[in-house]
Amino acid sequence: MSIFGLFRRRSTAPVARDRLQVLLSHERAVIGKSDLIATLQEEILAVIAKHIKVDRDAVQIKLERGDNFSTLEIDVEVPSLAKTNKAA
Amino acid sequence: MSIFGLFRRRSTAPVARDRLQVLLSHERAVIGKSDLIATLQEEILAVIAKHIKVDRDAVQIKLERGDNFSTLEIDVEVPSLAKTNKAA
Repeated sequence: MSIFGLFRRRSTAPVARDRLQVLLSHERAVIGKSDLIATLQEEILAVIAKHIKVDRDAVQIKLERGDNFSTLEIDVEVPSLAKTNKAA
Repeated sequence: MSIFGLFRRRSTAPVARDRLQVLLSHERAVIGKSDLIATLQEEILAVIAKHIKVDRDAVQIKLERGDNFSTLEIDVEVPSLAKTNKAA
Protein backbone atom coordinates (compact mmCIF):
# COMPACT_ATOMS: atom_id res chain seq x y z
CA MET A 1 0.00 0.00 0.00
CA SER A 2 1.36 3.41 -0.94
CA ILE A 3 1.30 6.19 1.57
CA PHE A 4 -1.69 7.66 -0.29
CA GLY A 5 -3.66 4.63 0.72
CA LEU A 6 -3.69 5.97 4.24
CA PHE A 7 -5.98 8.77 3.13
CA ARG A 8 -8.50 6.48 1.56
CA ARG A 9 -10.54 5.31 4.48
CA ARG A 10 -12.23 2.06 3.43
CA SER A 11 -14.26 3.67 0.67
CA THR A 12 -14.89 0.31 -0.97
CA ALA A 13 -14.08 -1.75 2.12
CA PRO A 14 -11.41 -4.12 0.75
CA VAL A 15 -11.77 -6.22 3.88
CA ALA A 16 -15.46 -6.13 4.70
CA ARG A 17 -15.80 -6.14 8.45
CA ASP A 18 -18.95 -6.17 10.45
CA ARG A 19 -18.98 -4.73 13.88
CA LEU A 20 -21.21 -5.83 16.70
CA GLN A 21 -21.34 -3.91 19.93
CA VAL A 22 -23.17 -4.93 23.05
CA LEU A 23 -23.56 -2.59 25.94
CA LEU A 24 -25.03 -3.72 29.22
CA SER A 25 -25.77 -1.54 32.17
CA HIS A 26 -27.13 -2.71 35.48
CA GLU A 27 -28.41 -0.28 38.02
CA ARG A 28 -29.02 -1.87 41.37
CA ALA A 29 -31.50 -0.44 43.81
CA VAL A 30 -29.75 -2.28 46.63
CA ILE A 31 -26.08 -1.43 46.89
CA GLY A 32 -23.52 -4.12 46.31
CA LYS A 33 -25.93 -6.95 45.63
CA SER A 34 -25.25 -9.63 43.03
CA ASP A 35 -23.15 -9.36 39.94
CA LEU A 36 -25.60 -9.99 37.14
CA ILE A 37 -23.45 -8.33 34.51
CA ALA A 38 -20.49 -10.65 34.98
CA THR A 39 -22.88 -13.61 34.84
CA LEU A 40 -24.46 -12.43 31.62
CA GLN A 41 -21.15 -11.66 29.92
CA GLU A 42 -20.14 -15.25 29.13
CA GLU A 43 -23.66 -16.30 28.17
CA ILE A 44 -24.22 -13.41 25.81
CA LEU A 45 -20.85 -14.08 24.20
CA ALA A 46 -21.90 -17.69 23.74
CA VAL A 47 -25.15 -16.58 22.09
CA ILE A 48 -23.24 -14.37 19.68
CA ALA A 49 -20.73 -17.10 18.92
CA LYS A 50 -23.58 -19.40 17.95
CA HIS A 51 -24.43 -17.09 15.07
CA ILE A 52 -21.17 -15.60 13.93
CA LYS A 53 -17.59 -16.80 13.83
CA VAL A 54 -16.10 -15.03 16.79
CA ASP A 55 -12.38 -15.01 17.35
CA ARG A 56 -12.08 -14.59 21.10
CA ASP A 57 -8.86 -12.63 20.61
CA ALA A 58 -10.77 -10.13 18.49
CA VAL A 59 -13.34 -9.50 21.21
CA GLN A 60 -12.83 -6.49 23.40
CA ILE A 61 -14.52 -6.51 26.76
CA LYS A 62 -14.66 -3.63 29.18
CA LEU A 63 -16.30 -4.16 32.53
CA GLU A 64 -16.79 -1.37 34.99
CA ARG A 65 -18.17 -2.08 38.42
CA GLY A 66 -19.61 0.35 40.88
CA ASP A 67 -21.48 -0.15 44.13
CA ASN A 68 -24.84 0.12 42.48
CA PHE A 69 -24.06 0.63 38.84
CA SER A 70 -22.12 -1.63 36.51
CA THR A 71 -21.52 -1.48 32.82
CA LEU A 72 -20.20 -3.99 30.36
CA GLU A 73 -19.09 -3.29 26.84
CA ILE A 74 -18.51 -6.07 24.34
CA ASP A 75 -17.01 -5.19 21.01
CA VAL A 76 -16.86 -7.84 18.31
CA GLU A 77 -15.37 -7.41 14.88
CA VAL A 78 -16.10 -10.06 12.29
CA PRO A 79 -14.68 -10.36 8.77
CA SER A 80 -18.25 -10.24 7.36
CA LEU A 81 -21.44 -12.15 7.92
CA ALA A 82 -20.89 -14.26 4.83
CA LYS A 83 -19.42 -16.56 7.47
CA THR A 84 -22.61 -16.66 9.46
CA ASN A 85 -23.05 -20.14 10.79
CA LYS A 86 -26.18 -21.10 12.61
CA ALA A 87 -24.99 -23.77 14.95
CA ALA A 88 -28.28 -23.87 16.83
CA MET B 1 -48.09 9.31 51.70
CA SER B 2 -48.34 13.03 52.47
CA ILE B 3 -47.68 15.57 49.79
CA PHE B 4 -44.24 16.11 51.32
CA GLY B 5 -43.38 12.59 50.41
CA LEU B 6 -43.28 13.67 46.78
CA PHE B 7 -40.12 15.63 47.48
CA ARG B 8 -38.33 12.69 48.94
CA ARG B 9 -37.09 10.82 45.93
CA ARG B 10 -36.61 7.18 46.90
CA SER B 11 -34.23 7.99 49.72
CA THR B 12 -34.87 4.59 51.24
CA ALA B 13 -36.19 3.00 48.04
CA PRO B 14 -39.60 1.76 49.19
CA VAL B 15 -39.89 -0.34 46.06
CA ALA B 16 -36.37 -1.43 45.24
CA ARG B 17 -36.11 -1.77 41.51
CA ASP B 18 -33.13 -2.88 39.54
CA ARG B 19 -32.73 -1.77 35.99
CA LEU B 20 -30.96 -3.70 33.30
CA GLN B 21 -30.32 -2.15 29.94
CA VAL B 22 -28.91 -3.91 26.92
CA LEU B 23 -27.89 -2.01 23.86
CA LEU B 24 -26.85 -3.78 20.69
CA SER B 25 -25.53 -2.15 17.60
CA HIS B 26 -24.61 -3.93 14.42
CA GLU B 27 -22.69 -2.19 11.70
CA ARG B 28 -22.61 -4.16 8.50
CA ALA B 29 -19.84 -3.71 5.99
CA VAL B 30 -22.05 -5.16 3.29
CA ILE B 31 -25.34 -3.31 2.91
CA GLY B 32 -28.55 -5.10 3.69
CA LYS B 33 -27.06 -8.43 4.61
CA SER B 34 -28.50 -10.59 7.41
CA ASP B 35 -30.40 -9.47 10.43
CA LEU B 36 -28.21 -10.57 13.31
CA ILE B 37 -29.75 -8.15 15.78
CA ALA B 38 -33.26 -9.54 15.45
CA THR B 39 -31.85 -13.04 15.83
CA LEU B 40 -29.96 -12.13 18.96
CA GLN B 41 -32.88 -10.30 20.56
CA GLU B 42 -34.87 -13.35 21.65
CA GLU B 43 -31.82 -15.31 22.71
CA ILE B 44 -30.40 -12.52 24.84
CA LEU B 45 -33.81 -12.05 26.46
CA ALA B 46 -33.84 -15.77 27.22
CA VAL B 47 -30.39 -15.54 28.81
CA ILE B 48 -31.54 -12.66 31.01
CA ALA B 49 -34.74 -14.48 31.96
CA LYS B 50 -32.66 -17.42 33.14
CA HIS B 51 -31.15 -15.25 35.84
CA ILE B 52 -33.82 -12.79 36.81
CA LYS B 53 -37.58 -12.90 36.99
CA VAL B 54 -38.52 -11.00 33.86
CA ASP B 55 -42.09 -9.95 33.26
CA ARG B 56 -42.27 -9.76 29.49
CA ASP B 57 -44.78 -6.92 29.79
CA ALA B 58 -42.23 -4.92 31.74
CA VAL B 59 -39.61 -5.26 29.02
CA GLN B 60 -39.23 -2.41 26.58
CA ILE B 61 -37.68 -3.20 23.26
CA LYS B 62 -36.72 -0.70 20.63
CA LEU B 63 -35.35 -1.94 17.34
CA GLU B 64 -34.09 0.39 14.66
CA ARG B 65 -33.01 -0.98 11.33
CA GLY B 66 -30.97 0.72 8.69
CA ASP B 67 -29.34 -0.56 5.52
CA ASN B 68 -26.03 -1.15 7.20
CA PHE B 69 -26.62 -0.13 10.77
CA SER B 70 -29.11 -1.54 13.23
CA THR B 71 -29.59 -0.92 16.90
CA LEU B 72 -31.56 -2.74 19.53
CA GLU B 73 -32.36 -1.47 22.97
CA ILE B 74 -33.71 -3.76 25.67
CA ASP B 75 -34.84 -2.21 28.91
CA VAL B 76 -35.73 -4.48 31.81
CA GLU B 77 -36.98 -3.37 35.18
CA VAL B 78 -37.05 -5.89 37.99
CA PRO B 79 -38.43 -5.48 41.51
CA SER B 80 -34.93 -6.26 42.92
CA LEU B 81 -32.47 -9.07 42.52
CA ALA B 82 -33.54 -10.68 45.77
CA LYS B 83 -35.69 -12.65 43.35
CA THR B 84 -32.72 -13.86 41.37
CA ASN B 85 -33.38 -17.41 40.29
CA LYS B 86 -30.68 -19.37 38.63
CA ALA B 87 -32.64 -21.76 36.47
CA ALA B 88 -29.56 -23.02 34.65
